[in-house]
Amino acid sequence: MKWLLAGWLICLGGGSVFADEGMWLYNQPPREQLRERYQFDATPQWLEHLQKSSVRFNSGGSGSFVSADGLLISNHHVGADALQKLSTKDRNFLRTGFLAKTSAEEIKCLDLELNVLQSIEDVTARVNAAVPTNATPEAAFAARRKIIATIEKESQAATGLRSDVVTLWQGGAYQLYRYKRYTDVRLVFAPEEQAAFFGGDPDNFEFPRFDLDICLFRAYENGQPAQVKDYLHFSPQGVAPGDLVFVSGHPGHTSRLLTVAELEHLRDEGLPRRLETLYRREVLLANWSQRSAENARRAGRMLFGVRNGRKALNGRLAGLLDPELMGPKIQAEQEFKAQLAGKPEYADALAAYDKIATATTTLSTQAVESALLEGAQAFNCDSFRIARTLLRAGAERPKPNGERLREFSDSGRVSLELALFSEKPIYPDLETLLLADSLTDFAGQMGLDAPLVQAVLAGKSPRERAAELIAGTSVRDVAFRHQLYDGGAAAVAAAHDPMIELARLVDARARELRETAEAQDEVKQQAHAAIARARNALLGTAGYPDATFTLRLAYGVVRGYTEDGRTVPAMTTLAGLYERAADMHDQPPFDLPPLWAKRKSRLDLNTPFNFVSTCDIIGGNSGSPVINRAGEFVGIIFDGNLQSLPWDYAFNERQGRATSVHAAAIIEALNRVYGAKKLAQELLKGGRS
Amino acid sequence: MKWLLAGWLICLGGGSVFADEGMWLYNQPPREQLRERYQFDATPQWLEHLQKSSVRFNSGGSGSFVSADGLLISNHHVGADALQKLSTKDRNFLRTGFLAKTSAEEIKCLDLELNVLQSIEDVTARVNAAVPTNATPEAAFAARRKIIATIEKESQAATGLRSDVVTLWQGGAYQLYRYKRYTDVRLVFAPEEQAAFFGGDPDNFEFPRFDLDICLFRAYENGQPAQVKDYLHFSPQGVAPGDLVFVSGHPGHTSRLLTVAELEHLRDEGLPRRLETLYRREVLLANWSQRSAENARRAGRMLFGVRNGRKALNGRLAGLLDPELMGPKIQAEQEFKAQLAGKPEYADALAAYDKIATATTTLSTQAVESALLEGAQAFNCDSFRIARTLLRAGAERPKPNGERLREFSDSGRVSLELALFSEKPIYPDLETLLLADSLTDFAGQMGLDAPLVQAVLAGKSPRERAAELIAGTSVRDVAFRHQLYDGGAAAVAAAHDPMIELARLVDARARELRETAEAQDEVKQQAHAAIARARNALLGTAGYPDATFTLRLAYGVVRGYTEDGRTVPAMTTLAGLYERAADMHDQPPFDLPPLWAKRKSRLDLNTPFNFVSTCDIIGGNSGSPVINRAGEFVGIIFDGNLQSLPWDYAFNERQGRATSVHAAAIIEALNRVYGAKKLAQELLKGGRS
Repeated sequence: MKWLLAGWLICLGGGSVFADEGMWLYNQPPREQLRERYQFDATPQWLEHLQKSSVRFNSGGSGSFVSADGLLISNHHVGADALQKLSTKDRNFLRTGFLAKTSAEEIKCLDLELNVLQSIEDVTARVNAAVPTNATPEAAFAARRKIIATIEKESQAATGLRSDVVTLWQGGAYQLYRYKRYTDVRLVFAPEEQAAFFGGDPDNFEFPRFDLDICLFRAYENGQPAQVKDYLHFSPQGVAPGDLVFVSGHPGHTSRLLTVAELEHLRDEGLPRRLETLYRREVLLANWSQRSAENARRAGRMLFGVRNGRKALNGRLAGLLDPELMGPKIQAEQEFKAQLAGKPEYADALAAYDKIATATTTLSTQAVESALLEGAQAFNCDSFRIARTLLRAGAERPKPNGERLREFSDSGRVSLELALFSEKPIYPDLETLLLADSLTDFAGQMGLDAPLVQAVLAGKSPRERAAELIAGTSVRDVAFRHQLYDGGAAAVAAAHDPMIELARLVDARARELRETAEAQDEVKQQAHAAIARARNALLGTAGYPDATFTLRLAYGVVRGYTEDGRTVPAMTTLAGLYERAADMHDQPPFDLPPLWAKRKSRLDLNTPFNFVSTCDIIGGNSGSPVINRAGEFVGIIFDGNLQSLPWDYAFNERQGRATSVHAAAIIEALNRVYGAKKLAQELLKGGRS
Repeated sequence: MKWLLAGWLICLGGGSVFADEGMWLYNQPPREQLRERYQFDATPQWLEHLQKSSVRFNSGGSGSFVSADGLLISNHHVGADALQKLSTKDRNFLRTGFLAKTSAEEIKCLDLELNVLQSIEDVTARVNAAVPTNATPEAAFAARRKIIATIEKESQAATGLRSDVVTLWQGGAYQLYRYKRYTDVRLVFAPEEQAAFFGGDPDNFEFPRFDLDICLFRAYENGQPAQVKDYLHFSPQGVAPGDLVFVSGHPGHTSRLLTVAELEHLRDEGLPRRLETLYRREVLLANWSQRSAENARRAGRMLFGVRNGRKALNGRLAGLLDPELMGPKIQAEQEFKAQLAGKPEYADALAAYDKIATATTTLSTQAVESALLEGAQAFNCDSFRIARTLLRAGAERPKPNGERLREFSDSGRVSLELALFSEKPIYPDLETLLLADSLTDFAGQMGLDAPLVQAVLAGKSPRERAAELIAGTSVRDVAFRHQLYDGGAAAVAAAHDPMIELARLVDARARELRETAEAQDEVKQQAHAAIARARNALLGTAGYPDATFTLRLAYGVVRGYTEDGRTVPAMTTLAGLYERAADMHDQPPFDLPPLWAKRKSRLDLNTPFNFVSTCDIIGGNSGSPVINRAGEFVGIIFDGNLQSLPWDYAFNERQGRATSVHAAAIIEALNRVYGAKKLAQELLKGGRS
């Protein structure tokens, strides 16, 4: 992979933004750029409709309403978490797919929460006013946590909406996002995984692609399909190469505004360490999965997540190791620092770089231990995570709202309880496998003789200790969780549950590490805020902040690219699926789904299947609607190509592309492969009748 | 896995040895133990015949002659390296298997060297006398290297035999092993990999098993089948549960005599680090292999090796993390030290423990860099290894024999050149993949800004640099290698080959790290020698040294075991293969080989297939003959179960078992699956006619 020097867009968040770059805030949309570049007027009405048609999957992903009767579409790989939780050995929706022929057949998901953004309010001044000047980082963090919890609680009480204070510009701004929340979400349609993820891990992040990566749900309210005013009209024509398109979704996280010191830390330590964990886990899960079909089913989504993460992180690391990405980053920072130098009004911004570097080093020295303990990588299983939530709920809930760990604040209670009391299946064999391996890793990282390792293992081998803990804990019983959550710290202590006692054993050190991390993050936030102020003053306020899993608007053009001297067209067709399977001798993961093999003759093989565009997206955008100028649904984002992976650090549209399923393929497949004509009709009509 | 406390055998190399433990030296055989325990007299004649029938595969493995006409048998997974090198996209012996119907059809292997042990001579006194007392470690190492090179060269000149001075007892003794060497070795028969490795990685190191893990070769001399006096008579009856059996083979490496400090280092640093590398490589190769059948073929053996190593190391690490293995180790060392305390004549032995601990720490501090540079993990591809051999050959060969790096000594020349000038295929795409990944790892381990990393990458990204190096080097051309090897340092320098120049760039630092390591190893050898002297004096001289990839004799009984309350019988039958495939829905890697599916009805399904015994083996023993009291071939070692993996550190026969193919299955399969009746006849008759 060779990147064009000028292609990388470095000077973000201030100054000019080139090409189709940008994950734009809805309250700071790129109206001018769209007018200039594409002669398109993104009116407030157009924007508001799109905003309120866009859906966030709290499990990590995006989607959109596509019918007045609460029907919504996302990716299969976004819905798969819900599918996995609804599946059993004998009812495996991931393998077989699912279609509800009537409303009555729609199945309620176990713990899925959807959010629809209703409003945004800037609360920067109020947040910063509550943080005393010259406070210690610890005190500043506490004060900031308190005012944020207060704002969220007030808003929730006043509006009944989910209310999150979001940190933007790495601390340059704080904004209150209010969401309508849906927790009764039902499964309507999913293709079989082999159609949704044809080509599997080898083709993940590649293009050309041939995936029907969609999943349909319906939001319910009071036991009835939700009636929604804002939903996207479905365009059966979809898009053609050259078309201007928009993406409205929830990019999870980018790092484009990090300083060079932070990026170098990621490059040399952060990413290599995270990759080590992913490699280890991939090998563990892949091999366990090979031992039986049921093992493969149980570990399936986790293994997908690990592989997806490993491939994404490798792509990001390759970007950071490429001098043609990092060189301009370094140069831009040097130039900006040169602008600041000698200007007393920007002394804090100039000093901020050193503060960030120092905080980064401090965080780095405890990163391994912190990931193991507070990140719970040493105890990587659901049983431990539940046990710790119960332990901490007992300790945190009696505290004043503003003084609790953030995840226990009043405004987060509904989401916390939805997850904590989920009836999702937890498999003791898989739990034991994961815990034994992560305890082994714990011993390897810290040394077996470290006192905390000795205390955790309690004189046993990692395997024996893991087996004993998983067999001995009661936290997989949801009634037990209710009992301890309601009973508080006393009930938790009285239970003498071995997994909760393990959580208690490491809790003091884990909290200590977290406190240090939070204080250092506060230092960084203040420093970044100083840089942001200087940047806005010197370079102008145009631009967009790094992604924060909040709603953003991106735009771009449906366009192919050139790779190794070969033209990659912007679109594939259904015919290509059959060709690819034949080329790969129909061997997994390139085996045709049986239904697609059987129904090939019914299909119009010229139907567009997947396409790429220059829209600026990243993980979390999965399931985002792709819309045309008319605001119609023309496709759905499900991936980016390999060359888009370094977009975490800088956008580049020379080869990087966002990958989507074409609207026409969705209709064709529903009608002719899955016999889901009623559903196709609902999409085309925008309602059930 | 739960180990019985008393089961681990800790007090090795002195004092009593229990049960069926022991990898015995042929010049110090367990005659007394065999008489006492099994009323068996291992006569010198019996031993000599077995010794000279045993064959070492220099590629790593064991085998034995089974016919007067030079026919020899080993494992498929030992022969697979040769099979891979002979295979192409269109002629894939690993997938299809191979049978030479006539001598003319036997195919010469590219670079396979076999060794047959002829004699052993103790040279401890001569070696130690050449090392000046109170020399620095560096000087001591140099003196020892020199005398060893001299002894080897003299012996080779005098006998014409390959002559290796072997370090035993971690430095307690030096013995000269002389081997007859065969380098014209031809492939006679190999089953398809799916029969040899049925169950793949999931079933590797498991039992019950159903693998025909065999491969037949023929040694040639002067273009004709070698006529051998010593070969094993093949017993078609094989063995039955309860039988006493022997294993004669080449266990590669054990660590039973290491001090606690050394074991703790392995547990907390050595093994976790090596596992990280294996995890990384497994993910890389597994995913590349999934992209096409040809990729899978090219990377196949490497991926097998990585997976096999990962599983073995995980098992060993589990052993070291088990207090029931390590506890007695610690206790035994404490007790022995207590015996030494206050006795001036053993002061050196007592002090040796601290010297070993200090040397271990010193080695540990440079372990990562050393693995990257001298271990070449930063440049993990054949092209680099060849380039470095050419570079160093140019520098080393002009030096006096005793002053060269050990691999360039005169006595090693034949083996070195056999490997260096091998025509084995090297695939640029796979080379680029491996090099790009290992350069990325290099940057991650050392930090991109490290001067040597910067120099290696030369301003490019790892991917770009790897592509450039692999495309630019000429070392894949064997004629080029000859030219540079013959032309010496001047020719090497004049070639300006980019890969050789890379090797040159890192060579100074790599050699520096190696020198430190060699000096520290010398310190350890002297310290271990002191401990060995004290141990022999205080505990007696019974026992056997750690494995050193030299010929050893093990003995044991064909016997099942109990696991999780379930009885695991000692033997499986051919019927079990079909049952296992059916249980696993015939899904890879549990799919029946087509020929076995087709010919099922011809087979006597009650034929014993695989069996386990209590013989003490480890990696390197693969392919070792299993023989009965009469010295007949009754089976062939191909694996150990999971519970045998910690045997690296201590033997335990409660559950640990060696796994073999039964002789009867070999005859049945050759006759009735493969139509190889002539070959079966040769085995049964001990000759071609």
